[in-house]
Amino acid sequence: MTRAINLDLSHSMVEGAVLELESEIRAAHDHLHNGTGPGNQSLGWLELPANYDRQELARLQASAERIKTTADALVVIGIGGSYLGARAAIEILTHSFHNQLPRDRRPGTAIYYAGHNLSSTYLRHLLDILEDKSVCVNVISKSGTTTEPAIAFRVFREWLQKKYGPQEARRRIFATTDQAKGALKQLALEQNYESFVIPDNIGGRFSVLTAVGLLPMAAAGIDIGELMAGAGDMMRATALPSLTANTCYQYAAARNLLYRQGKTIELLVNYEPSMQYFAEWWKQLFGESEGKHHKGTFPASVNFSTDLHSIGQYIQDGLRLLFETVIRIGQPRLEVTIQPEPSTGDGLNYLNGKTMDFVNQQAFAGSLIAHADGGVPNLVLNVPKQTPYFLGQLFYFFEKACAISGYLLGVNPFDQPGVESYKNNMFALLGKPGFEAEKQALEKRLKHTLISGERFDKLILPYQF
Amino acid sequence: MTRAINLDLSHSMVEGAVLELESEIRAAHDHLHNGTGPGNQSLGWLELPANYDRQELARLQASAERIKTTADALVVIGIGGSYLGARAAIEILTHSFHNQLPRDRRPGTAIYYAGHNLSSTYLRHLLDILEDKSVCVNVISKSGTTTEPAIAFRVFREWLQKKYGPQEARRRIFATTDQAKGALKQLALEQNYESFVIPDNIGGRFSVLTAVGLLPMAAAGIDIGELMAGAGDMMRATALPSLTANTCYQYAAARNLLYRQGKTIELLVNYEPSMQYFAEWWKQLFGESEGKHHKGTFPASVNFSTDLHSIGQYIQDGLRLLFETVIRIGQPRLEVTIQPEPSTGDGLNYLNGKTMDFVNQQAFAGSLIAHADGGVPNLVLNVPKQTPYFLGQLFYFFEKACAISGYLLGVNPFDQPGVESYKNNMFALLGKPGFEAEKQALEKRLKHTLISGERFDKLILPYQF
Repeated sequence: MTRAINLDLSHSMVEGAVLELESEIRAAHDHLHNGTGPGNQSLGWLELPANYDRQELARLQASAERIKTTADALVVIGIGGSYLGARAAIEILTHSFHNQLPRDRRPGTAIYYAGHNLSSTYLRHLLDILEDKSVCVNVISKSGTTTEPAIAFRVFREWLQKKYGPQEARRRIFATTDQAKGALKQLALEQNYESFVIPDNIGGRFSVLTAVGLLPMAAAGIDIGELMAGAGDMMRATALPSLTANTCYQYAAARNLLYRQGKTIELLVNYEPSMQYFAEWWKQLFGESEGKHHKGTFPASVNFSTDLHSIGQYIQDGLRLLFETVIRIGQPRLEVTIQPEPSTGDGLNYLNGKTMDFVNQQAFAGSLIAHADGGVPNLVLNVPKQTPYFLGQLFYFFEKACAISGYLLGVNPFDQPGVESYKNNMFALLGKPGFEAEKQALEKRLKHTLISGERFDKLILPYQF
Repeated sequence: MTRAINLDLSHSMVEGAVLELESEIRAAHDHLHNGTGPGNQSLGWLELPANYDRQELARLQASAERIKTTADALVVIGIGGSYLGARAAIEILTHSFHNQLPRDRRPGTAIYYAGHNLSSTYLRHLLDILEDKSVCVNVISKSGTTTEPAIAFRVFREWLQKKYGPQEARRRIFATTDQAKGALKQLALEQNYESFVIPDNIGGRFSVLTAVGLLPMAAAGIDIGELMAGAGDMMRATALPSLTANTCYQYAAARNLLYRQGKTIELLVNYEPSMQYFAEWWKQLFGESEGKHHKGTFPASVNFSTDLHSIGQYIQDGLRLLFETVIRIGQPRLEVTIQPEPSTGDGLNYLNGKTMDFVNQQAFAGSLIAHADGGVPNLVLNVPKQTPYFLGQLFYFFEKACAISGYLLGVNPFDQPGVESYKNNMFALLGKPGFEAEKQALEKRLKHTLISGERFDKLILPYQF
């Protein structure tokens, strides 16, 4: 590997103790690599960067090319792991105002998201701005029956048919779904949608390097070959169980040590606003993998220096439950030099001729020391640049660190049983067949809530195409 | 008051205990209203909705009109409390894709933000898309020397001058700053910028209802008179110390009781994605006000149902440190009816003819019960609609609840001493005059970090207009 992201534990307060977890780490490693741990049916991501199907990737790239030449806008319909990875990559690697650039000034299609919430206002607003655009849709759902994307996809199917007619609408829909079964797979077969597979042995939050993440990224103009190359290099760099040589395992060990010391909130910190959705991807990855059996580090995130002016006070001097993991980017994609302006008294003249990123780096270094002095351990991941290659490294680094962390914590990092609780309640309240028994009991418990709120079914502005 | 937001504590697990805090609440109320508590020089927000200067507001609205007729885009330069309130309001009350709509389909100017981070990439990208637009700038800074906005404003001053010449550039700059002193006030006087005042007795995070928040909102087309009316009604509704009649104080009491029981993380929950920046505003408000002396609830936020597919597992079954405060909107701004589509097997036919918001409301109710059953107390704030009037109520509700919470916790809710720590380090590392002594010591401590990272001052792409 030419260069890798690296980990700096010199301000972590556990640098010296990490090696104490050598044998625990080795056991977790063996479980993972031998497939002897819980969740071992979901390890398809582990060697994916080496064994992914190159022909499938070529077909995917051809579809992305077709989207780029056909459409002004691609609507990605998916929720949770079905959109977070793609969105993270697209925000990091495209222009900060990608969708607002004219077509000839961006390398790919504009990307919009739907089916990731239940806001009718958002969906109507999205349809507003798509009205005069040429649109393709990528619907991403293993089952096809997850409520949010299923509703959005029903709306978009009708919308595309009215706009283009049934034939052309079908040609503009790309389905990423199960290989063989499920409502979306069935529909894709009937309608002859171009389809891509979500493998059975890769869970949603580990699926960013499958077609789930790759098709939207490629349509946005991202070099997914480079992304896979970065992931592959990181896969090889983290293949050995030795803690001393494996920064990924050092990170897992350090965060688990801190958890045992009562540092129960991990803040993922960035100094580039384009990293915000990467933090959202990371929060799902660790939150769903570790948050069970009343255990697990609570994952939160901040954008610095922005949030130094918001949550910074709390970090410096609030409850001492926090540690920070900082993703530090070595070089910005674009630079600004602070130009001399001797006539004004804005107090910045000592920065004349310096770059803005130099200031950003000192904000990082200053906060690192200040927060460590305040009792907040800081782990620093140094990433040379925001490129597809290094992002591929980052995705894989965190996936593997998360799996190892889960095993260290004594949980199955690949399931999410708690997600069913609200769904069952919601289905009962929605009147879904098969949930009749629960409905009445729930409505009784909600009596006060229903009364104190507004109405539940009044129609405000009917939706008509 | 016609109608107010209301609070439902029936799933809070402390509903019965709230009245135990009656005397503590009364003491906090007295400190606040008599000005006898710490931070009593910063109480200008308390009666602002009643006593704000109507003539100033009219002048502000005239400026907003001038911006709307002059410019396609207003760049708001500010950080922390100098932009979060305006951004929260603008995201809630304008179109979800406001900046992308053609001018004749939106009621105000497109709004962009700068000076809220140190990303040179972001700033360059912003300048890219402003290139062919007519631009005004509202720079918001009490001192004028806060690093982030000062750098951005220097860049934009030069940019406007090159684009429009010095005369017209001056006319396009609006300064919101100190009444009498500071670098920005000085510059505004010299250059004859239209200026608005940040009062001395209102801190940044309590300033949303001053010109700080109101000018960008008005330029975006928001009815700020309605906003102030809502704040005024909430001010009157929360003027009495009685806990039984004051939902604002009930909220403060409930969250402080939960804190004492070890619920140290408060998640602000919404079911409308346009509320995301409201949560950011709220996080600053509570994080900076309470997070001191190693105390305070850690403020975090989630967007549901989106994040039920991400952090939902952790909430249901992770460490039991959490409680949720849900902002529930009674009626969506726009509705979508789920149309019958009998031919497909997407599993949604039981929802035919129902509205999307009906589904959203059941997701809320289902999660409420599921999370409460999982041991997560839920406080519900019912807001009838997303309008300027009710948003005015919400802003004031949380400001006052925050002040009372801080006094209950035994801290000064109006200072933020911890924010200086990183700034002092940063200034030293930047080589600011007066910080020479600290510089060497810091660089020694950063030795390992500097070596393991990339370079600190290499220029990537020189910035040239």
